[in-house]
Amino acid sequence: MTDTQKKPRRPRAETPKGFRDYFGAEVTERKDMLDRIAAVYHRHGFDALETSGIETVEALGKFLPDVDRPNAGVFAFQEEEVPGGGSGDWLALRYDLTAPLARVAAQFRNDLPSPYRRYAMGPVWRNEKPGPGRFRQFYQCDADTVGSASVAADAEICAMLADALEAVGIQRGDYIVRINNRKVLNGVLEAASVRPDQADDVLRQIDKFDKVGAEGVRQLLTVGRKDDSGAEIAGVGLTDDQAGPLLAFLTSKGADNGATLANLRAAVGGSAIGAEGVDELAQIADMLTAMGLGEDRIIIDPSIVRGLGYYTGPVFEAELTFEILDEKGRKRQFGSVAGGGRYDGLVERFTGQKVPATGISIGVDRLLAALRAKGLAGRDSAGPVVVTVMDRDRMADYQAMAAELRAAGIRAEVYLGNPKNFGNQLKYADKRRAPIAIIQGGDEAARGVVQVKDLILGAKIAAEASVEEWKSQPAQTEVPRDRLVAEVRRILG
Amino acid sequence: MTDTQKKPRRPRAETPKGFRDYFGAEVTERKDMLDRIAAVYHRHGFDALETSGIETVEALGKFLPDVDRPNAGVFAFQEEEVPGGGSGDWLALRYDLTAPLARVAAQFRNDLPSPYRRYAMGPVWRNEKPGPGRFRQFYQCDADTVGSASVAADAEICAMLADALEAVGIQRGDYIVRINNRKVLNGVLEAASVRPDQADDVLRQIDKFDKVGAEGVRQLLTVGRKDDSGAEIAGVGLTDDQAGPLLAFLTSKGADNGATLANLRAAVGGSAIGAEGVDELAQIADMLTAMGLGEDRIIIDPSIVRGLGYYTGPVFEAELTFEILDEKGRKRQFGSVAGGGRYDGLVERFTGQKVPATGISIGVDRLLAALRAKGLAGRDSAGPVVVTVMDRDRMADYQAMAAELRAAGIRAEVYLGNPKNFGNQLKYADKRRAPIAIIQGGDEAARGVVQVKDLILGAKIAAEASVEEWKSQPAQTEVPRDRLVAEVRRILG
Repeated sequence: MTDTQKKPRRPRAETPKGFRDYFGAEVTERKDMLDRIAAVYHRHGFDALETSGIETVEALGKFLPDVDRPNAGVFAFQEEEVPGGGSGDWLALRYDLTAPLARVAAQFRNDLPSPYRRYAMGPVWRNEKPGPGRFRQFYQCDADTVGSASVAADAEICAMLADALEAVGIQRGDYIVRINNRKVLNGVLEAASVRPDQADDVLRQIDKFDKVGAEGVRQLLTVGRKDDSGAEIAGVGLTDDQAGPLLAFLTSKGADNGATLANLRAAVGGSAIGAEGVDELAQIADMLTAMGLGEDRIIIDPSIVRGLGYYTGPVFEAELTFEILDEKGRKRQFGSVAGGGRYDGLVERFTGQKVPATGISIGVDRLLAALRAKGLAGRDSAGPVVVTVMDRDRMADYQAMAAELRAAGIRAEVYLGNPKNFGNQLKYADKRRAPIAIIQGGDEAARGVVQVKDLILGAKIAAEASVEEWKSQPAQTEVPRDRLVAEVRRILG
Repeated sequence: MTDTQKKPRRPRAETPKGFRDYFGAEVTERKDMLDRIAAVYHRHGFDALETSGIETVEALGKFLPDVDRPNAGVFAFQEEEVPGGGSGDWLALRYDLTAPLARVAAQFRNDLPSPYRRYAMGPVWRNEKPGPGRFRQFYQCDADTVGSASVAADAEICAMLADALEAVGIQRGDYIVRINNRKVLNGVLEAASVRPDQADDVLRQIDKFDKVGAEGVRQLLTVGRKDDSGAEIAGVGLTDDQAGPLLAFLTSKGADNGATLANLRAAVGGSAIGAEGVDELAQIADMLTAMGLGEDRIIIDPSIVRGLGYYTGPVFEAELTFEILDEKGRKRQFGSVAGGGRYDGLVERFTGQKVPATGISIGVDRLLAALRAKGLAGRDSAGPVVVTVMDRDRMADYQAMAAELRAAGIRAEVYLGNPKNFGNQLKYADKRRAPIAIIQGGDEAARGVVQVKDLILGAKIAAEASVEEWKSQPAQTEVPRDRLVAEVRRILG
């Protein structure tokens, strides 16, 4: 290096684009929610599985179950060359928890119990363009049963999902789990004499049922329609007679499951696969009743079409039905927080054998946002009691106070910055959202007392009180040193 | 694709080399341990921090705190090119939790409380050659205080570490936290007139104190010695007079902290930095006493030299002192499970300013192995009660039984495989380590009863009993259907 060379510039202290940090309650609130869900899954006989973040690209494949993002990218990198020749394997970060489950189910097929019930929770990575609120690392929370063709497995997953939502605090009546069945749709397609090459197109159009309604879908299935901007959208070209069973399917939800099932039987006409699908839904309904889950919690709803293109049997979706205010202050329903269904191709890529599987994935960030909107998150995220430092030579005394408080189960810490400026200590306590500050100067120490300052009451008084009231300091109490824990307990309530 | 082209071969269902999966109790035992540690950290005022797995290579730097692996590799990959020119940033998976803390402490220095106490738990990745028991993804569990130069922060970290070890189940007397101080060593080097260019070499030799003892280190510091194989190892070339203070330092542990501190004061002679180091240790000892932590839990021990090369002040190490049997059946002490100390360079790379910090890292896999060796892990990893399926048309009845058991807080599941072969169902229950199987055929259903089979007692009988005893089936009880939950509860105890 020559004398004229500059020092290298300092590195930037930044997360990569599309990544973020989670602080304090952001971490513990999510953890608390996932812990409650895990407890429900465990009680249902599901076992935890934790795979590593890295898989071979070969094992990962392109098995993206989330139909909304079929072309999502992965973060991939190549292993260093193997000594003695040959280039290294390509590795990648997992983009979901289903692909690793497929690999595990194939790799350990002789060791795992069959059926294998497992849950998994953890981060996944997607190499996508980040956007507002859209990150390239996020949590997923899945439960799947691998190796059972029985609809009992599907019923159990739905029941477990409803239990999980209640376990995190969503009240009965504030959510609904809806069930549909791809086989019923197949039956309807058969009843409507839809050609196989038209099926994808038909699915794409009925997926717009939410937005355009029954008449809109009828137009899209037949001659086409104008969208809001006036643009002409081509129709699939079915006749009105063909569109009939499809519309009957979408609108067959009746006053109760019995009525819905009767409507569905009519919609599938003489189709054998359709009848099988309706029978499955009827069995699921019976099982849910036996398990004590009423139609106020789980209901058959053929208007749920999301995922029907991907799944092969029953399809589930959990929706939160309470209203929140959107960014423009308008009331709207919270919407979907979980989805899943039955699929067959899980381990086939690896073993050549079809293995039936069914499962559910909870949208972790969405559900957590819902809990926050309802005031149900962060029940345990209070700041610590801060023991201030008036006399740095008596640090051991202050530490003894904090230790006593902690021994009584109270979150507590000693101020560890430069104690010279007491105002800074109170600013620090404020930043820590401390409910209480403890103060003991030399005078108080000599008299064997401490000052206990109620910062929450203090803030309230500061905002509302007159100068006289403020000076009288009702938020600060002097107590004997040996009453410290009792007084803090009293204020914390 | 031509007709003659073969189908692509099936992908291999394998983890990449050096990675592994964690099943069931392997996941929940670790989680239980980390939860207990997190509760202790939280009670001490530490806040959770979760950074993402991916950082920019620029931010990550080469700040590897684990001195044993200074050249550890990272998994790195380049971002795709930025549209409109410029190549993408290099990104990498974090190799520890300290480098992300440094980035966060710099990035959010105006927002975070100061001092900032944080804990972090999660996987890290190292692109190293895997070996037996050595994986390329593993957990770390760190707690650090950033921005406090006070030894009160060091004392607090040590006290918290001792509390954490007891919280996970290590009994008092089965562990010891040892404290040393780099400043004392610096004072000793000064007292011994060791030249700065000899310091690294001296450190390397005294690090062998564990293996070669005092006389061995004396030889290594002076004229050299022969190792076990007879090879000549060169000495540093100090005189015996120079080696004296260094050996006095290493062997200065006395009957109690008071004696140790007196020995250390003698060893540092007139060195100012040495006296400062001894004063710091004396203050830490006073603070620990004030917090109620005796020398049976935390002790000053100058023979702890690991980490002295990296840290700048107090150094800590937690050791488990109970004996286990090694792979050859020999008794040995379990050894170190956590280490840490004070360091100054944390955010300097980013901001140019030295920020004092101190922290501890618990070896997650080692501590978990210790808990397993002591039978302290897996207190809640029992298998579920398995409700068997005698009649597949009455699936709803079996699901109702499982739902009842779960509502009573009992882990339970219905067998979801093909129910044809009952033997397979019991094999499944065995694989699930089920304590109990529930059986109800058509006959029992008609009579309103269920069979409750105690599988643990059954296995015991099968191993010990005569054919007659076995036939009498004392491990299987028939109870009225409405006594199901009560009977299961009775057996589970």
